[in-house]
Amino acid sequence: MATLKLLTDEEADAIPAVKEVFDDIRAIRKSDFINNFWRGLANDPPLLKRTWEGLKAVMAADGVLDPLVREMIYIAVSTANGCSYCVHSHTAAAKARGMTKAQHAELLAVIGLAGQTNHLVTAMQIPVDPKFLV
Amino acid sequence: MATLKLLTDEEADAIPAVKEVFDDIRAIRKSDFINNFWRGLANDPPLLKRTWEGLKAVMAADGVLDPLVREMIYIAVSTANGCSYCVHSHTAAAKARGMTKAQHAELLAVIGLAGQTNHLVTAMQIPVDPKFLV
Amino acid sequence: MATLKLLTDEEADAIPAVKEVFDDIRAIRKSDFINNFWRGLANDPPLLKRTWEGLKAVMAADGVLDPLVREMIYIAVSTANGCSYCVHSHTAAAKARGMTKAQHAELLAVIGLAGQTNHLVTAMQIPVDPKFLV
Amino acid sequence: MATLKLLTDEEADAIPAVKEVFDDIRAIRKSDFINNFWRGLANDPPLLKRTWEGLKAVMAADGVLDPLVREMIYIAVSTANGCSYCVHSHTAAAKARGMTKAQHAELLAVIGLAGQTNHLVTAMQIPVDPKFLV
Amino acid sequence: MATLKLLTDEEADAIPAVKEVFDDIRAIRKSDFINNFWRGLANDPPLLKRTWEGLKAVMAADGVLDPLVREMIYIAVSTANGCSYCVHSHTAAAKARGMTKAQHAELLAVIGLAGQTNHLVTAMQIPVDPKFLV
Amino acid sequence: MATLKLLTDEEADAIPAVKEVFDDIRAIRKSDFINNFWRGLANDPPLLKRTWEGLKAVMAADGVLDPLVREMIYIAVSTANGCSYCVHSHTAAAKARGMTKAQHAELLAVIGLAGQTNHLVTAMQIPVDPKFLV
Repeated sequence: MATLKLLTDEEADAIPAVKEVFDDIRAIRKSDFINNFWRGLANDPPLLKRTWEGLKAVMAADGVLDPLVREMIYIAVSTANGCSYCVHSHTAAAKARGMTKAQHAELLAVIGLAGQTNHLVTAMQIPVDPKFLV
Repeated sequence: MATLKLLTDEEADAIPAVKEVFDDIRAIRKSDFINNFWRGLANDPPLLKRTWEGLKAVMAADGVLDPLVREMIYIAVSTANGCSYCVHSHTAAAKARGMTKAQHAELLAVIGLAGQTNHLVTAMQIPVDPKFLV
Repeated sequence: MATLKLLTDEEADAIPAVKEVFDDIRAIRKSDFINNFWRGLANDPPLLKRTWEGLKAVMAADGVLDPLVREMIYIAVSTANGCSYCVHSHTAAAKARGMTKAQHAELLAVIGLAGQTNHLVTAMQIPVDPKFLV
Repeated sequence: MATLKLLTDEEADAIPAVKEVFDDIRAIRKSDFINNFWRGLANDPPLLKRTWEGLKAVMAADGVLDPLVREMIYIAVSTANGCSYCVHSHTAAAKARGMTKAQHAELLAVIGLAGQTNHLVTAMQIPVDPKFLV
Repeated sequence: MATLKLLTDEEADAIPAVKEVFDDIRAIRKSDFINNFWRGLANDPPLLKRTWEGLKAVMAADGVLDPLVREMIYIAVSTANGCSYCVHSHTAAAKARGMTKAQHAELLAVIGLAGQTNHLVTAMQIPVDPKFLV
Repeated sequence: MATLKLLTDEEADAIPAVKEVFDDIRAIRKSDFINNFWRGLANDPPLLKRTWEGLKAVMAADGVLDPLVREMIYIAVSTANGCSYCVHSHTAAAKARGMTKAQHAELLAVIGLAGQTNHLVTAMQIPVDPKFLV
């Protein structure tokens, strides 16, 4: 259960500033589905709008990284931050963008390896090699 | 300063099990440079060998993800874990693999966005949408 | 399910050192309700007592920060640490202390923003401006 | 050292989209000082602009939380995320907004306590009390 | 629910590279029980094998630290990383290796204390004493 | 540089509540050395006292875990939390308590392994096996 109300479609439709964002999410995603994250943010329409605009600019717009690569980077951050919802939602998004089982497995392997070496480096307090600072 | 000794080339060469790994690192990377991480791990030759074998299998071997993509995922995890050395070393590695300024900027944008939404989700304790669990 | 037993009222009452703390919690909070956190700590009466004394001194005593502000800071730390129970319990505590929907929304906005810029700073490895060190 | 170039004033002035944001930062803050964070983000003008607009909306605009309280929440998140630069810059900002030594000390006490109980809760895997979910 | 399929015994037995690892897990642990972690990793047999070999070398082999001590260190890391599954599985493992209630309580006390002082240190940005660097 | 003043011996001696704690630290540790952590906390004598009393009770008192084991658990938590100062100070403390190079190496191996599997578990969102909940 969330720490605030998740707005239903009816409640969202009754607030113009929320309806506008939800309509844009549906249009961009070509789907009627609005996931819980946006229903929670809808309690604060300006925060909802800023967050969606940020996500649209970074994840949905044309860019130099493949959209699937962006989703995999998102999963990596969400994993290290221990955000269960985020891992679930962005793994679903990555699969929707065509992530294969082999790509998923390789993503997991990199994430696990980074987790291991991050811990080893910190426990040893390794100083940065001057070469990396050039 | 590290919490243990970083082995010099001379000290590393004097321990056959360390020399063997260092030689392999040099061969795989086609460079004489051994960064501090391995010099720290060299205090425990079996740990050095296991860690290098893991890294070689995940980061240097053929795979389904582009090696540059793997480095960007590594940076993403290292950032969320706050590992300064790891961010520096893998950003250097990504640049060596051809990461452009535009790709770096987009990577940063995704990492920042994920950091933001991870925190929002956790603060709201958003429950996972059933649709994500299918 | 917890990794240790959560003591029932009956079990707690049977251990004088636990009963004393539970009675003090009830008196300070003017409520009969003892939440699960204390029932878990009750397995180790000295740890229970130290933890409660610390919490009482920091959160329940007079101070220079408004008690509601302290709860909001608590939520901020708990969110960044990914502690679901703590986010739930301290959001409930903040609401009990009068946190409005608008205050909650603004708290979320600050937490999300900090999460974003923390990640951006770490990914860029920004050096501290000398001015901040004065 | 950062993983990307920190733009000097001259370099920033040469890029209209960067100059516009830097000018706004100076106007809002009533100071000529631009800290390193913005000089790093300036490598990606759209990210710079989005991040500044977000920060301006959350931290500089009128709101229901006192601006100093917002800075203290920022410090709390930055501490839990281990972002050294962010702790330094937002502690400086809080002091500039009038944070007293006594308020700083109380902030530290709450942050430390939350860190402790977050860890205890997670180690015990305490289930959320139904009462917190109402 | 996991983000990938957890292999059943039947599915695992049908893949020789998985069966081999599962058989070794059963032999080393002297138990037929294969926990979900391995069933998830089984989607990628080489990752499964590397992870199991690493775990076997560190946790099951003879060493200089008592196996129970290793499990307690594992719980400590897992707690700080907020990994619920890991806290559960390694607390179960520690109990299986004879961890008493008093040892568990003392482990919790150390973990909580470290969580507190870690946060205090970071919020104060305490510089390392030169004495610690010798 | 710290975000608050680190009290010198002279400044500490001038505040009876601080002097009392510093004297106790010196007596318990049988050393004149007071590390920076306590000099920072000295800005808030009650917080200094509570923190020292907690540390004394958990780390210096008789218990069921060997004092060296407690220091290693402390290092594990501090590593996962990315607290550089804490890793340095508690590694120094562990060495002072007799931690051998082999024990240090094994500690690092366990910490690294836990970091890896924590990330793998979270990325896969592995559900807790019912057996672990008994």
